[in-house]
Amino acid sequence: MFMKILQVDFDYQGPMGTDMSEALKDLALSINKEPGLIWKIWTESASEQLGGGIYLFEDEKSAQNYLAMHSERLKNMGVKEVRGIIFDINLPLTEINSGPVI
Amino acid sequence: MFMKILQVDFDYQGPMGTDMSEALKDLALSINKEPGLIWKIWTESASEQLGGGIYLFEDEKSAQNYLAMHSERLKNMGVKEVRGIIFDINLPLTEINSGPVI
Repeated sequence: MFMKILQVDFDYQGPMGTDMSEALKDLALSINKEPGLIWKIWTESASEQLGGGIYLFEDEKSAQNYLAMHSERLKNMGVKEVRGIIFDINLPLTEINSGPVI
Repeated sequence: MFMKILQVDFDYQGPMGTDMSEALKDLALSINKEPGLIWKIWTESASEQLGGGIYLFEDEKSAQNYLAMHSERLKNMGVKEVRGIIFDINLPLTEINSGPVI
């Protein structure tokens, strides 16, 4: 089994920054319970009106399951199109650049 | 100054896995010298024919400078279109999910 990076982004005009931190705290706590999740970095761009996340998962299956569930949840929150890509990690090169996956 | 995530991906049919680790080792070593870089995770997807990277930079300016230079380098390597997005990090939510940015 190999760890995977899940990269998600989507058009988003909702609250960002401190407002988002408050509004989505319970969601973040629930994400810790998702099977196979190791970590998530929450990404946002006010200038490009994008929300997103970078996730590290233990294996492909858990990344796939999460992406399916999360896409559905975002659509229920009004997001029209979710761009989600599951990537392999090139570990030797990532290690050279101190990537925090090991 | 706030740290930024740079998310890059592009259509790619070149070597992946061990072949890429060997071919791009010197490039990875040179990336450690880029101003403001904290880490890079090397991403690749053979099934979707994508290459990419997730980077943590010390600030927006260094992320912008790197993206401009890297896009040019990829185009010289034959990549037609580079998708690069510079994101803010929602630190309180990222902290809840153990995101490795602090």
